[in-house]
Amino acid sequence: MVTFIVKSNTAKTKFLLKDLPGSGKRIDVLCRCVNSAFCLSHDIRRDTVLYLCFGRKTIKFVGKELKHLTPDERGIAILLRKAIEDNPTPGVYISEKSFQETVLESGKEIIYLDEKGEDISHLKLKKDMCFVLAGHLGFSQEDRGFLERIGRKTSISPRILHADHCIIVVHNFLDRS
Amino acid sequence: MVTFIVKSNTAKTKFLLKDLPGSGKRIDVLCRCVNSAFCLSHDIRRDTVLYLCFGRKTIKFVGKELKHLTPDERGIAILLRKAIEDNPTPGVYISEKSFQETVLESGKEIIYLDEKGEDISHLKLKKDMCFVLAGHLGFSQEDRGFLERIGRKTSISPRILHADHCIIVVHNFLDRS
Repeated sequence: MVTFIVKSNTAKTKFLLKDLPGSGKRIDVLCRCVNSAFCLSHDIRRDTVLYLCFGRKTIKFVGKELKHLTPDERGIAILLRKAIEDNPTPGVYISEKSFQETVLESGKEIIYLDEKGEDISHLKLKKDMCFVLAGHLGFSQEDRGFLERIGRKTSISPRILHADHCIIVVHNFLDRS
Repeated sequence: MVTFIVKSNTAKTKFLLKDLPGSGKRIDVLCRCVNSAFCLSHDIRRDTVLYLCFGRKTIKFVGKELKHLTPDERGIAILLRKAIEDNPTPGVYISEKSFQETVLESGKEIIYLDEKGEDISHLKLKKDMCFVLAGHLGFSQEDRGFLERIGRKTSISPRILHADHCIIVVHNFLDRS
């Protein structure tokens, strides 16, 4: 069971479906993270758990329980909205746990992504790891300090990628390991 | 300059922005292919060209000329619509070239993605290759026969991925090569 935790310091819990990047302050990135974490061609990655931490909420997606997941951003934004309105669909859970609590409670080896980290190809990958990523403005200084204390700084590309693209690359390394 | 050509046998040139997967017959996949081909964190892949072949049209995106590209599906769908209505934004071109003409005119080494192909890690990758992918229902039998004659069948994952996810993985292999 691989875990991804994505922290966004900008995304809002209120947004317009017709303007996710603007009204939702880049909640479109989080929607695409859900797609990246779970969507295979005509299948779902049931062995994956994803946490999105934003706007004082944490939304958890459990692959093996998910229903009603469509790969498009708008469909995923509707699932987020349902969770935020306390009417979550199966496999989706909402809490007020902080990002740092969520990371600590994962109980797994923490790998956090940073372009200055050690290349992922040097890691001994296990399915039972927790990968931590930041939304479009990176980690805050406080979160970065926290992650430096408990995690392993890892890079997945010589280029700086969006969080949703990072999840695809991590999955590919795990699929091949 | 890396080239991607994505063929969709379902996507429509007329669609509703509020229902891309349904009304556009999975044009959402093509929108995400544009994101995958070009979007870096706060940057654009200027050394990439993408062709989307669907509904008797071919839309070409030239990275080094692109303007007004946003990473969200809806924003990209608006760029597609402008091109389809013969009012394309900079870096976007529309033609009635067929998929097979588009592939032949690339003048590059053709790598087509198929889960039964040779693993990409065995290839001697060059930036000047053309990667050919299918939308959500795979290649038609005719297109598959055509690609078998002129291209190299390559797999990028032990799992079957969406076309937009495949582009991310190919970019990662190229970025590392």
